[in-house]
Amino acid sequence: MTAFTGELVGTALLIILGDGVVANVVLNKTNGFSSGWIVITMGWGMAVFTGVFVSAAASGAHLNPAVSIALAAAGKFDWGLVPIYIVAQMLGAMIGSLLVWIAYKQHFDATENTSTKLAVFCTSPSIRNASHNLITEIIGTFAFVLAVLFIVSPADKLGSLDALPVALLVLGIGLSMGGPTGYAINPARDLGPRIMHAILPIKNKGGSDWKYSWIPVLGPITGGVLAALLFKVIS
Amino acid sequence: MTAFTGELVGTALLIILGDGVVANVVLNKTNGFSSGWIVITMGWGMAVFTGVFVSAAASGAHLNPAVSIALAAAGKFDWGLVPIYIVAQMLGAMIGSLLVWIAYKQHFDATENTSTKLAVFCTSPSIRNASHNLITEIIGTFAFVLAVLFIVSPADKLGSLDALPVALLVLGIGLSMGGPTGYAINPARDLGPRIMHAILPIKNKGGSDWKYSWIPVLGPITGGVLAALLFKVIS
Amino acid sequence: MTAFTGELVGTALLIILGDGVVANVVLNKTNGFSSGWIVITMGWGMAVFTGVFVSAAASGAHLNPAVSIALAAAGKFDWGLVPIYIVAQMLGAMIGSLLVWIAYKQHFDATENTSTKLAVFCTSPSIRNASHNLITEIIGTFAFVLAVLFIVSPADKLGSLDALPVALLVLGIGLSMGGPTGYAINPARDLGPRIMHAILPIKNKGGSDWKYSWIPVLGPITGGVLAALLFKVIS
Amino acid sequence: MTAFTGELVGTALLIILGDGVVANVVLNKTNGFSSGWIVITMGWGMAVFTGVFVSAAASGAHLNPAVSIALAAAGKFDWGLVPIYIVAQMLGAMIGSLLVWIAYKQHFDATENTSTKLAVFCTSPSIRNASHNLITEIIGTFAFVLAVLFIVSPADKLGSLDALPVALLVLGIGLSMGGPTGYAINPARDLGPRIMHAILPIKNKGGSDWKYSWIPVLGPITGGVLAALLFKVIS
Repeated sequence: MTAFTGELVGTALLIILGDGVVANVVLNKTNGFSSGWIVITMGWGMAVFTGVFVSAAASGAHLNPAVSIALAAAGKFDWGLVPIYIVAQMLGAMIGSLLVWIAYKQHFDATENTSTKLAVFCTSPSIRNASHNLITEIIGTFAFVLAVLFIVSPADKLGSLDALPVALLVLGIGLSMGGPTGYAINPARDLGPRIMHAILPIKNKGGSDWKYSWIPVLGPITGGVLAALLFKVIS
Repeated sequence: MTAFTGELVGTALLIILGDGVVANVVLNKTNGFSSGWIVITMGWGMAVFTGVFVSAAASGAHLNPAVSIALAAAGKFDWGLVPIYIVAQMLGAMIGSLLVWIAYKQHFDATENTSTKLAVFCTSPSIRNASHNLITEIIGTFAFVLAVLFIVSPADKLGSLDALPVALLVLGIGLSMGGPTGYAINPARDLGPRIMHAILPIKNKGGSDWKYSWIPVLGPITGGVLAALLFKVIS
Repeated sequence: MTAFTGELVGTALLIILGDGVVANVVLNKTNGFSSGWIVITMGWGMAVFTGVFVSAAASGAHLNPAVSIALAAAGKFDWGLVPIYIVAQMLGAMIGSLLVWIAYKQHFDATENTSTKLAVFCTSPSIRNASHNLITEIIGTFAFVLAVLFIVSPADKLGSLDALPVALLVLGIGLSMGGPTGYAINPARDLGPRIMHAILPIKNKGGSDWKYSWIPVLGPITGGVLAALLFKVIS
Repeated sequence: MTAFTGELVGTALLIILGDGVVANVVLNKTNGFSSGWIVITMGWGMAVFTGVFVSAAASGAHLNPAVSIALAAAGKFDWGLVPIYIVAQMLGAMIGSLLVWIAYKQHFDATENTSTKLAVFCTSPSIRNASHNLITEIIGTFAFVLAVLFIVSPADKLGSLDALPVALLVLGIGLSMGGPTGYAINPARDLGPRIMHAILPIKNKGGSDWKYSWIPVLGPITGGVLAALLFKVIS
């Protein structure tokens, strides 16, 4: 499998399971309706686990432009590959959210609230304020990427369990830092599905909240780069 | 242990723990009554973990006709063994659901609702619609089997922990894709216990919903084969 | 550390964390009050994890008379050591429940219901019926011990993580088979703390329900021996 | 990375994720508001996982003065390094709680109750009583440190997963022993953020409850030393 395919398939699985768990918790008449934050965060944790072990061998399992850019900034990844990784991540995220929409089609139709339907695709702030929301995404991604840079995986020894540390880390970030902005911490995870929300013929869908869309892109990239810079200083 | 016994015992344990957690959450007067989606999905995840580590050495731990067929379609398993694996899986699932019924006998008797009693044995859709329900099962199993095909287990190195990746994957599939149809993703898991529901002298049991029964068989097999075909293309 | 000390310390930690989580969930004014079945079962799962990794090197981490007897019945443990293991397990369980009582003393005092206070120490059935309750404990322990006998741990390779499979198995057993009788599945876990309940000067404590006490002893031992016999036949 | 930096960065991440999950659960208008004890304890468990794998190579991942002192008392750590470790842990905890305050700034402002705001930073007892609260912290930390002393990690073999046993242990301690006092079990985790609460210009913040502050310092140190002494006797 090529690195491009790895990032695309890995990110698609990340979003199938990640946007999927949000659909299960927020849309009407699902089995997981209103089952709470532990379900959301555990679902995203297992989404990361799956996406990472599927793509680890082919691409190194970035699945996140903020990670690709931070790794490049830390000198651990070739800047020349960053654009192609981001394209694959964006395409994967778009495909993933398309499949979630198809799988949950009847439940989208059974849900009135337009913000709820948008929430399956992308994040929105609990208390809207551009600068505070941006800072929260920067801090969350800073903690995430700083820890990622310290992960030591003895490849070939643990096989797919090598994906567990980053999955548990994302579980932790979600539990702890997801309160104010829903922890995008990944521009592709937010922007790719948001584009699909704008494109897809979702019944009574409302707007795609484009005025917020730059925050879950700029915040994670900034946080990731800051983490990479700190990592270079201290390690 | 022979492969046949491995699949039978592994699937029986899968269903003891899997149908067991549903019994605990939906039947009246249990300790886990109404304890929610995290309990259901974690219970099935640990059911997979247990069934897989018990049968891994003997049979490779398929425990699921969709997995056996998909592995054969991917060229990783002998088509000639598929029928015997499916027979073992079906028998194991039937035995497992029998033991759950015995263990929860008093709680079946204390529960009025016939759909609730059926739910311990097999899945049913939240919003009934044959084509949509089928598509959801196809997508859920497609994601599940595609990821399964990428699992790398360093056998002999981790022992029983080799079963953890697939268990966490099923936990993730349940959390995320279980909302509309209860994630059968396994024909034996659904059809075997459904047959037992039809046979057993359960008090006030109602029908076994045979008109839905083909969906959790055809959907998972279709999704699994599609995943195998994609895997052959990209890997 | 001797095997005796290993079993004693391991079982004490098992019960500190196991009875502790029940105290946290059922006693008044605790942080975990009414936090549900996922907390109970995850607490017992981590209790097993801790007790097992602490005692693995010294005693092989039985922590449970039903396990010691089943291993002897399966020919994997010396019958001559069984009595001394059981004594250590009982003493450890008694010490563990004593420490839980001390740690939660104020919350015992703040709780009126005598059954609630007893529930911290030992199990009781949701629907009382000697034969049904016994059968449930037999089936639960049968599944537990059968799986235990298949666990493969590459000692020296994973260190303390070798304790994870059995911990996840007990998590699964609790989630799935704990509904009717609270999954004793361990005579020492039930009888040791029950004796302490009878001895300790707990305020307004009520009876220790001795007429039920033989079921969580006989059921687990029977289930464990049946599992050992089946294991010898099929493996 | 130096040991000092390791302890500082590791403890900062521990507190970002640990105090972060409390903020998410207790402050108004967050996504995790009132999501319960499983979220709190799982959040702290993943906080420990992250802090430990980040600092393991540089400092051995103490992140806790009670652990540093207990290891020294057990003869496994140089007493001369204890003071510098504690300074790093305190600074890290202060920095971590500062970042949580910044990330959740709007939610602090949206929360009236002063005790709730203090709870993000440090622990308080459910039923206030100096001697009982002290005993609870001693027992909780005794169980925690005793188990820590038995952890066997095959360094270089599992990489970051070496941090999982202690994370699951802290998850267990929280689930089980966190009911009465909120399981400080770590003087730096409590005192560092409490100092920040006193210093920071938090809107309508109320007092920092200094009269309780010595208990989560003295209790954990006492419990840790008792565990070290017992460990020396039995191991």
